[in-house]
Amino acid sequence: MGEDALLARIAHRIGPARTGEVWAGDDAAVVASAASRILIATDLMVEGIDFDLSYVSGEDIGWKVVAVNVSDIAAMGGVPRSVVAGVALPPETKLSFVDGFLDGLVEAAAEWDVAVVGGDLSGGREIVAVVTVVGDTAEPPLLRSGARVGDGIFVTGTLGGSAGGLAALRAGFARTRPVVDLVARHLRPRARVVEAAALRRFGITAMIDISDGFALDLRRLMRASGTGCLVDPGRLAVDLALLEVADELQVDAHMLALHGGEDFELLFTMDRSAEEDARDALVAVGCGLAFVGEVTDGGRFLGDIDLDKEEGLGWDHLQDP
Amino acid sequence: MGEDALLARIAHRIGPARTGEVWAGDDAAVVASAASRILIATDLMVEGIDFDLSYVSGEDIGWKVVAVNVSDIAAMGGVPRSVVAGVALPPETKLSFVDGFLDGLVEAAAEWDVAVVGGDLSGGREIVAVVTVVGDTAEPPLLRSGARVGDGIFVTGTLGGSAGGLAALRAGFARTRPVVDLVARHLRPRARVVEAAALRRFGITAMIDISDGFALDLRRLMRASGTGCLVDPGRLAVDLALLEVADELQVDAHMLALHGGEDFELLFTMDRSAEEDARDALVAVGCGLAFVGEVTDGGRFLGDIDLDKEEGLGWDHLQDP
Repeated sequence: MGEDALLARIAHRIGPARTGEVWAGDDAAVVASAASRILIATDLMVEGIDFDLSYVSGEDIGWKVVAVNVSDIAAMGGVPRSVVAGVALPPETKLSFVDGFLDGLVEAAAEWDVAVVGGDLSGGREIVAVVTVVGDTAEPPLLRSGARVGDGIFVTGTLGGSAGGLAALRAGFARTRPVVDLVARHLRPRARVVEAAALRRFGITAMIDISDGFALDLRRLMRASGTGCLVDPGRLAVDLALLEVADELQVDAHMLALHGGEDFELLFTMDRSAEEDARDALVAVGCGLAFVGEVTDGGRFLGDIDLDKEEGLGWDHLQDP
Repeated sequence: MGEDALLARIAHRIGPARTGEVWAGDDAAVVASAASRILIATDLMVEGIDFDLSYVSGEDIGWKVVAVNVSDIAAMGGVPRSVVAGVALPPETKLSFVDGFLDGLVEAAAEWDVAVVGGDLSGGREIVAVVTVVGDTAEPPLLRSGARVGDGIFVTGTLGGSAGGLAALRAGFARTRPVVDLVARHLRPRARVVEAAALRRFGITAMIDISDGFALDLRRLMRASGTGCLVDPGRLAVDLALLEVADELQVDAHMLALHGGEDFELLFTMDRSAEEDARDALVAVGCGLAFVGEVTDGGRFLGDIDLDKEEGLGWDHLQDP
C-alpha cells in the first residue's frame, strides 16, 4: 500500500474535523484555541528500546504513546487538545499492525477527549512512533520549579505496577489476575488528567509526572526548585497486585516502586494544610493520595539514599535495555 | 553520555525561554499564543530513507527537518512559532553529530524566528528525527480545497533544483558552482514564509507547498478542491543551475521539475487579475512567480499527462528509495 492510500485510510479512521478545524489532509492541522498559553509535549517510542513486539501489540503502542504525552500535559495542569503522530514503518510491517496502532491511538485520544489531527509516515528499519500532544491552560502552568521549603510532598495512586507488568511480560507469565492488572498498568497507562484538574484549587506549588521512576523524578523536581527533601520511602503506596505476585516474579516490589518508572502518577508539592481536602477531591475521582515527605532547605534524601550522590537512578532512554 | 546530561547540553544550546514561557526542562513546553487558530505540522526524516549519512551532515538534517515543517505552516498562510523534536539515536552516534544536528535545528529555527522549545530522545538502530512545528494564524488558513473554476494556477520560484542536488550528491560530484547551488537547494531548503505572507492580500484561494513533486502536489490540490486543471508544463520555471548541469548529471531537468519534489515552492490558485500585483510583491522579497495554467471543471491535465490516470507520481515515503 502506498503512502497516499495509507494516509486516506488513516484520515477515514480519524473521522471528520470539528467545524472550523482541519485535521488530516492539508499541509498542517488547524485547531481552535481560546487559551493564551499553549502546552506542547513530545515523546518517542522505539521498537527494541521502548517496546518489544513479542509481547506488545500495535494497539498497546498507539495507546501508550498518546497516554505518556497526555500525562505530561496533565502534569503541567493543562488540558490536552490535539495529537499528531510521526511513524516510521519497516516495509514488512503488516497492515493489521498499522490498523491496531491507529485503533490504540484513537482510543486513547478519545479517552482524554483529544483530537487526532494529523501525522506523517516514512519507511525505516524498525518501528518508531513519535507523538506530539498540544494542549492549553488558562491558569499558570504547574512547573517543577515551584516547591517551597516546608511544603508537603505527595504522590497520587500507587507505584511499581508498570515495572511489575513489564517483568511479568518479559518472563512470559500468563495474563491472569493479578498479573493482568500489572500488565495493563504497563501497556495501557492512565494519564492523571482528571486528577490534576481536581488538585489545582489546592495550591499545588510544583508537579511532575512519574515517568522515569519516583527517585529520579523526585530529584528532578527538587533540583528544578532548588530545594532539598526528606522523603520516607515507607510511605509510598506500592501497587497491591505487585505486592501479591512479587515473590513469584522474583522482583523487589519496593525497589520497583522507587525506581521502576512509567506509572505516570503525579508527584507534587503543596502546603500540608490542604492535605485532607485534596485527598477527598481525589477519592471522589477514584484516586488515592500518599503524603511521603517534606521539602527542606537541606540535602535531597529518600530514606538512606542521598539522591545527589546516586548515578543511574531510574530509566535512561539512551542506555541499552 | 546519559540522557539527563545530553538533555542539559541541549537545554544550554537552546538558551533561556522568553519571559512567561517554559522551554526544555519541564514536563511540557509552555508558549504564549494570541491567535485563535493553532497550526500543527509534523514530519519525520529517517536515515537510509530520507537521508544518507555518506553525504549529509547532522547540521543538514537539523536544518531540513525544521524547514520542511515551517514550509507546511507557511503553506497554510500561518506564522511558525515553536518547534519540538523527537530523535532516535543509535548507541554509536557521535556527540559531534548530535551537536551538529542541534546547530542546524537552532539555525533554521532562528532563520524563521521559531523557538526550539523541547524534545525527546531515545536509542534506536538508525537515526530518526521527528519534528513538530506549532504556529498560528489570525486570518483563515489557506487550504488546499479552495480553488475555484477559472482561477489561475501559480508557482513561486523554481523547480527541480532539489532533485538535481540529490542526483549530484549521489553521483559524488564536486561541490563547485553551479552544483553547490543545487546541493544547497537539497540540503538547506528555504521555507517560503515571507513569500506566503506577502501573497495573502491577493486573494489566494488554495495553497500547498511542493514537497513530493509538482505533479503529485498539483493533483492533491485539485482533488482537495474537486476541480480540474489545464497546466502547461512548459511554463514551469526550471532551476537554472539544474539546466546548466543536467547533461553532465545525466538527468532530464524538466522531469525533475515535474516530479522531483522537495523544492518547497508554493503552488497556489487565485484570480488572474491579481497576477501582476502578486508578482511585484514577490519580486520585492526576491522571489519569482510563474503562471502555469488554469483551474477547470474538467479533467486534471498536466500537458499530455492525465493526472488521474498516473500511478506513482512523485515521492512515496513508504517505497524503498
